[in-house]
Amino acid sequence: MADRVLVPWRQNRDNAPHGMRVSVYDGEGDPPGDLSDVGFFVVPYGRNQRVDLIERMPQVSVVQVLTAGYERVLDVLPAGATLCNGRGLHDASTAEHAVGLMLAAQRDIPRWALDQRAHSWDPYYTRSLAGTRVLVVGYGSIGAAIEERLLPFETEVVRVARRARPESGVHGIGELRGLLPDCDIVVLVAPHTSETEGLIGAEELALLADGALVVNVGRGPLLDTSALLAEKGRVRAALDVTDPEPLPSDHPLWDAPGVYITPHVAGGSQTFYPRARAFVDAQLRRWAEGTPLRNVVR
Amino acid sequence: MADRVLVPWRQNRDNAPHGMRVSVYDGEGDPPGDLSDVGFFVVPYGRNQRVDLIERMPQVSVVQVLTAGYERVLDVLPAGATLCNGRGLHDASTAEHAVGLMLAAQRDIPRWALDQRAHSWDPYYTRSLAGTRVLVVGYGSIGAAIEERLLPFETEVVRVARRARPESGVHGIGELRGLLPDCDIVVLVAPHTSETEGLIGAEELALLADGALVVNVGRGPLLDTSALLAEKGRVRAALDVTDPEPLPSDHPLWDAPGVYITPHVAGGSQTFYPRARAFVDAQLRRWAEGTPLRNVVR
Repeated sequence: MADRVLVPWRQNRDNAPHGMRVSVYDGEGDPPGDLSDVGFFVVPYGRNQRVDLIERMPQVSVVQVLTAGYERVLDVLPAGATLCNGRGLHDASTAEHAVGLMLAAQRDIPRWALDQRAHSWDPYYTRSLAGTRVLVVGYGSIGAAIEERLLPFETEVVRVARRARPESGVHGIGELRGLLPDCDIVVLVAPHTSETEGLIGAEELALLADGALVVNVGRGPLLDTSALLAEKGRVRAALDVTDPEPLPSDHPLWDAPGVYITPHVAGGSQTFYPRARAFVDAQLRRWAEGTPLRNVVR
Repeated sequence: MADRVLVPWRQNRDNAPHGMRVSVYDGEGDPPGDLSDVGFFVVPYGRNQRVDLIERMPQVSVVQVLTAGYERVLDVLPAGATLCNGRGLHDASTAEHAVGLMLAAQRDIPRWALDQRAHSWDPYYTRSLAGTRVLVVGYGSIGAAIEERLLPFETEVVRVARRARPESGVHGIGELRGLLPDCDIVVLVAPHTSETEGLIGAEELALLADGALVVNVGRGPLLDTSALLAEKGRVRAALDVTDPEPLPSDHPLWDAPGVYITPHVAGGSQTFYPRARAFVDAQLRRWAEGTPLRNVVR
């Protein structure tokens, strides 16, 4: 019977329901040789997600990913298997990085870091976050977490999602262009789909005021890299995700004026791990008890 | 009659009550030649505060500074003149910079800035702000503004002030040492007085956990620079104020491991200016109407 569980963390084995057969594989080094009896696979998080291993698990009935996105799993998921994602686990980490990028860009923190390296004390008056209007594009659970953190900073938050929800003050994506001219900061948290690819291109950037800031913590292709480069610093950007990604060392985006880059680290800070481990523990309990799994996406 | 007003911004002249004699001097270049008829002096804000000009205003009846501190004015203030400070004007700007420094330090934003300059895409898992306990030392209006911004980040805030106010959950400074071992971040917002000088020295730093962060947006001498250097990175720091200040280019603090420096820019970001200009407008109206001035400190 395919009842073996493959988890990324020892804690999940230690906390597993009594009698459950659990192996640990965190994506580093060689995976266990025989995976034919794996029934529940928690895909390791991080650099080595090893989605390819699913093809060696013919009897797998549950695949759990710890990311929000799961496009790559769909191609290899056996018919009849259940797929769960990591929705919600990254909200706090991603939201705090998004606000951190806004503060860093408004208060010139990357500039001070370079000045520090040069031993240069050269103060001047920076922008503020206070008093800005922030457009959250892709208003879902992460967008709401960003908004919650932004409001005490004396900002105004404008919500945009795929579909308008007037009762919740959410604008539809069709209203985006009309909203761009009056905002100071646009933060992108939408998923990457055929609809969202190139959502912010040359025409949208042209609608932004001089010095406006685009923050991308969603997916690189939401923002047209060539169009951003063509702005030559008129519009600023703070990007945790890029297109292409990883950004090749000779790419012009590295040195583009007014562009700050962090290497896709928004979702994976320390606060993610306790949440993710506890979530896997709970999913295994649900599986053992036969109660419905959370975050089922297929 | 000494009824002339000297203000730093043209807006204050344009908005002044009808009939008021107003001159503009922003601290740059030469001041007006004859200052003997100045009755109300708003000290220019920024690099050139020109407190020295007060000695050329024998009949001045009100001096308004736009900083929270006013120690330097006390020596030159004529007997009988009223002194007002800028309490409250910097709260939003300082609080957002303080939180920006915490996020930058927890999420390694200065490191990513240096990596960007090197065209290096090298992600790893950083600390989070979520889940931290933050000690606010010098809990007043700026401390409260910091707390308000921190709470949605899933932090716990512990308040410390000169005097305990148990009814408001504020610990007295005498309890500081007992609180240090259990906090992740200490933020210093106290004024510089004989009591607060060296408030965080070698003994206090030794009580902090490995990797704890000290944020200083108060005054440089609150934190003993030599003691911090002696920690060799065991305790981290994000400092907007330093001792000495400005920091000489050959000072070892620039290259100290785990230390981030911004050049005393917390209070003076864009959001300060509209607040400060509106405050000066209102003070001039009060003076003209004979109603009590705000922020009188002597």
